Amino acid sequence: MEQLPHCETLLLEKQGPTLFLTINRPDVRNAMSLQMVAELATIFTQIEHDETIRAVVIRGAGGHFCAGGDIKDMAGARGQKPEEGQHDPFYKLNRAFGQMIEQVNQSSKVVIAVTEGAVMGGGFGLACVSDVAIAGPTAKFGMPETTLGVIPAQIAPFVVERIGLTQARRLALLGLRIDAKEACALGIVHQVAETDEELDQLLEQALERVRLCAPNATAETKALLHRVGHEPMHKLLDSAAEKFAEAIRGAEGAEGTMAFMQKREPKWAGDTE
Amino acid sequence: MEQLPHCETLLLEKQGPTLFLTINRPDVRNAMSLQMVAELATIFTQIEHDETIRAVVIRGAGGHFCAGGDIKDMAGARGQKPEEGQHDPFYKLNRAFGQMIEQVNQSSKVVIAVTEGAVMGGGFGLACVSDVAIAGPTAKFGMPETTLGVIPAQIAPFVVERIGLTQARRLALLGLRIDAKEACALGIVHQVAETDEELDQLLEQALERVRLCAPNATAETKALLHRVGHEPMHKLLDSAAEKFAEAIRGAEGAEGTMAFMQKREPKWAGDTE
Amino acid sequence: MEQLPHCETLLLEKQGPTLFLTINRPDVRNAMSLQMVAELATIFTQIEHDETIRAVVIRGAGGHFCAGGDIKDMAGARGQKPEEGQHDPFYKLNRAFGQMIEQVNQSSKVVIAVTEGAVMGGGFGLACVSDVAIAGPTAKFGMPETTLGVIPAQIAPFVVERIGLTQARRLALLGLRIDAKEACALGIVHQVAETDEELDQLLEQALERVRLCAPNATAETKALLHRVGHEPMHKLLDSAAEKFAEAIRGAEGAEGTMAFMQKREPKWAGDTE
Repeated sequence: MEQLPHCETLLLEKQGPTLFLTINRPDVRNAMSLQMVAELATIFTQIEHDETIRAVVIRGAGGHFCAGGDIKDMAGARGQKPEEGQHDPFYKLNRAFGQMIEQVNQSSKVVIAVTEGAVMGGGFGLACVSDVAIAGPTAKFGMPETTLGVIPAQIAPFVVERIGLTQARRLALLGLRIDAKEACALGIVHQVAETDEELDQLLEQALERVRLCAPNATAETKALLHRVGHEPMHKLLDSAAEKFAEAIRGAEGAEGTMAFMQKREPKWAGDTE
Repeated sequence: MEQLPHCETLLLEKQGPTLFLTINRPDVRNAMSLQMVAELATIFTQIEHDETIRAVVIRGAGGHFCAGGDIKDMAGARGQKPEEGQHDPFYKLNRAFGQMIEQVNQSSKVVIAVTEGAVMGGGFGLACVSDVAIAGPTAKFGMPETTLGVIPAQIAPFVVERIGLTQARRLALLGLRIDAKEACALGIVHQVAETDEELDQLLEQALERVRLCAPNATAETKALLHRVGHEPMHKLLDSAAEKFAEAIRGAEGAEGTMAFMQKREPKWAGDTE
Repeated sequence: MEQLPHCETLLLEKQGPTLFLTINRPDVRNAMSLQMVAELATIFTQIEHDETIRAVVIRGAGGHFCAGGDIKDMAGARGQKPEEGQHDPFYKLNRAFGQMIEQVNQSSKVVIAVTEGAVMGGGFGLACVSDVAIAGPTAKFGMPETTLGVIPAQIAPFVVERIGLTQARRLALLGLRIDAKEACALGIVHQVAETDEELDQLLEQALERVRLCAPNATAETKALLHRVGHEPMHKLLDSAAEKFAEAIRGAEGAEGTMAFMQKREPKWAGDTE
């Protein structure tokens, strides 16, 4: 693996095939600053082709996932006026966040969000693009934007993709704040832990499953899932059959079939250092 | 506010920023007549640019929301034959209903449905385009059309948008009738009250949230939500960032930010007469 | 009805308007072979215009629904190399399965899946295109493909259509195996029976509903549901209004209206031999 860059707002630690990424601005409940957005984008770009990494676990330091956009950045943008032919600084700030969210959504790695405390605004958006989301007992989710006179511009679209229009319209239009159980019932998170120990267990179980799944096959499957609904079904299935033939004739397909016959774990399950 | 028009089939009452709209044909369980469709369309057109109204609460008089299409209108349409070059009267009757439903769906106001008793056919369709739907203990939901030899033509598409194809196909193809709890589990309604008092409380809580949310920001957010899935995500997010910049530089954005700093309610929260 | 063809891998029995289709390779937990795919495709083609059949009940012999793709066919495809200008045998095998699944999904009949034991891989995909899915107490669902180094190519897209991207990505990327209750919470199945008797009862209730629903109206409704999201809503509703006018002026619409007025069952409810 390449050296991970130093980040001001994130703690990074690699354990085996997992990158633990901790949002680390606990004094402001991990509010999402422009710098944090840039650092997240840099990390996800760098790991995209790093074959030693299979999963990324995102969580927040100090008991909160992320409380939303950073107020100082907002004040900074307000101070600047848009220049002729340039986008408004508010546009840039907002759009940069959405671009990062799209990147995390499309990452070829398995993205696991461990959500605790405030999961609001931008933090809510980030949780909504994870492959696996686990909530701790303290987690609270919401889009408070309309109560502040603004709109959840880059977030709401991902919330609709996550839980559908029906639930998203109620949450967004009433600026509601919901707890972990309701978030799980709506599909924002997949699992709720009642204690911190259970949270760790659920995370460990998810990572254990990542270990057993072939890395390339997992990345191909994720890419396929993202295409559903964006192209005609029969074309998608034609393309998927090509990917299937490649996968089963490839190294992972050969090893997986062999391991299954020999009733042993496939090589990739141990190949995690 | 402009004077609300007199309606034969609807009772209208404005309280603060909320329009209470009561479907008022209790002797026929509020069956949806052509006139009712026309009156609903007129009201939603009129309030669209009425800034004194933020929310519309739709409910039915006499313990039922709406039992479906009106049988007399059906008989009337059967009597008429389609004229040369004209649509069948049944086409017009059916399509007019769908047009009204689309209008309610896209309304810039927060639409709250309070569902009790029969919520069938057209009534079911109407409930499915609300932003917030609350069910009372007596509510029953269903699309009985196929048991009558016809199809839920203007309703089923909105049911698919509401709860997805998987649940819609079972409900529509079996002509099922389900109770409030199942309707809530499927996402037709968001909340179920076990008593009439609780129903009133849940409605009050929703209206209290409407009061706290900035009216224009709410309308912009709703419009944004409706665009998801109908245009490429990155284009939608570009446009959303522009809306964000406008919102935060606008009057509501300024007031919301200020109120937040000053730890007071924003002006729009009190500006509800 | 035309004579049903003899099948090697399926048992077929017609009772009234219902075709009971039993996947019958219990020694390999009903693994889906190329022949089975071909036979399913043949049957669904044949019954498409058979007006004496309204519902198809799919279940597996010997306590399992279907454990996934057949290993012998896989070995066979591996032995063959793709010929010049030809698709890889793995492509053909995989794509043929997806084509059959699409056909079952679009069938004009009410497709009911009774799921027990292993409902894995291809079996999972088949369950995901049913109109009504009922799970028995032993049912287990999953896509184990990535644990074998391959991808759920023809299955995952239908899983996304069934339960949405949010849940599909977790199930597919972790290669999870879930029980009937979780499958029901996610919308893979509609109902879970706690005993075999209850399973039979739920099936009987569904078939009783099929009996009460007009066959053509049901088929038209199913076709309409499948179009939602694939064309602009207003065009779909225009077309649906035409179908409505045809239905209500047609034989079923006349009979259904008459039966309703006369408070009797419509003719189609008894016309089931």
